[in-house]
Amino acid sequence: MTPELLEQFRALLGPAGVLTDSDAMARYCTDWLGKWQGRTAAVLRPGNTEEVSAAIKLCHRHHIPVVPQGGNTGMSGGATPDTSGAQVILSLERLKRIRQVDPINDTLTVEAGVLLAEVQQVAREVDRFFPLSLGAEGSCTLGGNLATNAGGTAVLRYGNMRALTLGLEVVLPDGRIWNGLRGLRKDNTGFDLRDLFIGSEGTLGVITAAVLKLYPSPQGRAVAWVGSATLPKLISLLTHLRASCGERLVAFEMLSASCLDLIAAHVDSARVPLQSRPALHALIELSDTRPGDLAGLLEDSLNHGLKHDWIQDAVIATNERQAAEFWRLREGISQAQVRAGMAIKHDIALPISQIPHFVDESDKALREVFPELPLINFGHLGDGNLHYNVLLPRDTSPERYHMLTEALNRLVHDRVMSHEGSISAEHGVGQLRRDELKHYKSPIELELMLRIKQAIDPNQLMNPGKLL
Amino acid sequence: MTPELLEQFRALLGPAGVLTDSDAMARYCTDWLGKWQGRTAAVLRPGNTEEVSAAIKLCHRHHIPVVPQGGNTGMSGGATPDTSGAQVILSLERLKRIRQVDPINDTLTVEAGVLLAEVQQVAREVDRFFPLSLGAEGSCTLGGNLATNAGGTAVLRYGNMRALTLGLEVVLPDGRIWNGLRGLRKDNTGFDLRDLFIGSEGTLGVITAAVLKLYPSPQGRAVAWVGSATLPKLISLLTHLRASCGERLVAFEMLSASCLDLIAAHVDSARVPLQSRPALHALIELSDTRPGDLAGLLEDSLNHGLKHDWIQDAVIATNERQAAEFWRLREGISQAQVRAGMAIKHDIALPISQIPHFVDESDKALREVFPELPLINFGHLGDGNLHYNVLLPRDTSPERYHMLTEALNRLVHDRVMSHEGSISAEHGVGQLRRDELKHYKSPIELELMLRIKQAIDPNQLMNPGKLL
Repeated sequence: MTPELLEQFRALLGPAGVLTDSDAMARYCTDWLGKWQGRTAAVLRPGNTEEVSAAIKLCHRHHIPVVPQGGNTGMSGGATPDTSGAQVILSLERLKRIRQVDPINDTLTVEAGVLLAEVQQVAREVDRFFPLSLGAEGSCTLGGNLATNAGGTAVLRYGNMRALTLGLEVVLPDGRIWNGLRGLRKDNTGFDLRDLFIGSEGTLGVITAAVLKLYPSPQGRAVAWVGSATLPKLISLLTHLRASCGERLVAFEMLSASCLDLIAAHVDSARVPLQSRPALHALIELSDTRPGDLAGLLEDSLNHGLKHDWIQDAVIATNERQAAEFWRLREGISQAQVRAGMAIKHDIALPISQIPHFVDESDKALREVFPELPLINFGHLGDGNLHYNVLLPRDTSPERYHMLTEALNRLVHDRVMSHEGSISAEHGVGQLRRDELKHYKSPIELELMLRIKQAIDPNQLMNPGKLL
Repeated sequence: MTPELLEQFRALLGPAGVLTDSDAMARYCTDWLGKWQGRTAAVLRPGNTEEVSAAIKLCHRHHIPVVPQGGNTGMSGGATPDTSGAQVILSLERLKRIRQVDPINDTLTVEAGVLLAEVQQVAREVDRFFPLSLGAEGSCTLGGNLATNAGGTAVLRYGNMRALTLGLEVVLPDGRIWNGLRGLRKDNTGFDLRDLFIGSEGTLGVITAAVLKLYPSPQGRAVAWVGSATLPKLISLLTHLRASCGERLVAFEMLSASCLDLIAAHVDSARVPLQSRPALHALIELSDTRPGDLAGLLEDSLNHGLKHDWIQDAVIATNERQAAEFWRLREGISQAQVRAGMAIKHDIALPISQIPHFVDESDKALREVFPELPLINFGHLGDGNLHYNVLLPRDTSPERYHMLTEALNRLVHDRVMSHEGSISAEHGVGQLRRDELKHYKSPIELELMLRIKQAIDPNQLMNPGKLL
């Protein structure tokens, strides 16, 4: 990057809009896990969509590759530049306007840099609910949620980011602005560009704003912790709850016994809810937009499960404090894994009917090949999404880590594919799964994606080295 | 089409797979409304995906344009060939297999030629529910529903076809098969090809099968008919019902007084539910997956609406027979319009908060310019989707019809666009709205669509003359 070009960026974005000091740039050049490290000539921080457009036009003119970045909380290195120093980082953190709140249309128009927690709060202020919820909600941004089609803990009832979005504003790779900010439930006027940009991980353009759907506020919830002997039994309970509770079923989170042991060992003041020692645990939440006897409904459904021997034990939270405690256990998994050492993680999805077969086969293969490595299996069972992780000793050498990553990815992902699953359920591809994607995607599907990439970003300037 | 080429198609598809007799081809060459008439050299009727693939490979090799066709019940001429005779019709009507029913994963894998009503029935047989519902459900096919991203009367709660679909199988313009038949709730491994093909009206490929989402069966419903003085008041009731009933609110259908008069005049044994003469009527349905006092909940909500003067009158159906009678009135609109004469129809969507402004302005403009033409305004108010139709005298000449179509489209669609709406909410573009689309879509959006079309169908063989 020449000094002249930097001056042009400064003229477009102002002094606050361009960082070149290496200390100031450091936090943009690595992800929050410290797993990926990159270099950049400059961090661009435009203050509005027009500035994003102007900056990208200049990048386009000078063939400078652009790495869009939101809250930098991704799991797959999708927002970290490569080590060449040739890519600029385009941070959306200053696009923080709530452009419109429309409670009659049940929509919210927000810019990409708004934090997810802020969106939830704005919805609450007009007595509405924005359902996307995930661990990083206090620091992740809507732009990142959109770029990665974020999932989280309420997908079972409300769907992922794609299902929660009606319209987009996108700055295209040549810097022009596509205004697709429509707040419509029905619009059949051509190809679905919205869903093409959502989940494209910044490789087709930069999402600068979105129209989000709002929902009626839940008026109460009932939360239970249950123990089950086997996955087929636990899935029978899930199936029963879907039928008996319908849309009231918001979350069905599964944890293996070894996962709960890890939480108990590493998370402060973690109390295991059940006295029995079941092989599998599940956290279940019902909610409703009307007050009503949700705890009674949950109790009836769980009694049905106990009678059929689908579960062996169950506790229903008697108050909000206990419900929050159950959720803290579930959310303690990340911390417990960090404290326990290293892990090789998998973020996979399967048809729910295939999960028991997949887990049987993978557990067996893992025991045969790596009998010494503990498995930490948990996830959003109601969405068919498992985090099937393997713990490594703290002193694992980088060489062995690399070897084990390859071997375990192959062991797990081969079985995911044979059961028609996905090797990236909610975390996206980024840098982490790029080679795996090439390995597993059908050639036809890869070719279609490359053709679309070529059609929208012919100069390959948007987030190169990610996804494709 | 040379006799040699026809022989090649017959060799691929068998004698039942190729029609060339003009009597046999007649019903494929015009739409069910008789509005569009086309010609074709042959109707291809492959029996499975491999035959679709083989037929399209042959078309691709010889540069023969292909018009995919499902149940031929579309509203926009999207499945009728042009008059050149150079296009072949590819009917999917023989792809009728239910490939898989998976009640544990809550999915159904069906081929494109299966009727919507059959899909609903298969779901019921495993005690599940497939929510897509529309007037043509006894004759429209899943492939057509997918190609047009069908809407209907349950979008308010369940979403449109895109929201009901998890995976697709598509024969690409060169005849290769893309197998995207995944039954996953979460899958972030690249661009969203599924939603790109859904709603593309056969211009990017031929959808041959899909994985559909199943839902818990509703256990009961409550249906009401209400009268209101103004649109803002009726929308206040809608807003209140969303908050008080949440996901239980399945339908909120609006009919203007003149629309109901038309039904009363033309539909046999139509009985208007209300004694008062309100300016606006609405049909409201609640349902739930649990038994419970839905009628009581509806009564409470409507009493709230009466107290606030949002509605002036209301009747809750006391039994299933009366509920069905209310729905028959709503569904009688199509028949009433046909019997009343000709109509110029608009299928528009708006942000719900903009609907009163749009209707005020459009009504006023219509009264000024065409005071003699009666307006029939009805639609899925809960989705922001209006069918804002204008009746014409039966003896309207073709020239005057053509002139009025242009003038009324401009009058209505200009106002739709100024309120950030859509000129095709659920019927799609086809031939009917193709010029309107060019007139109203932003050049950037049209360019993005054309680039994608060029990337996927570079020889422009898939359904030319439609959509783009």
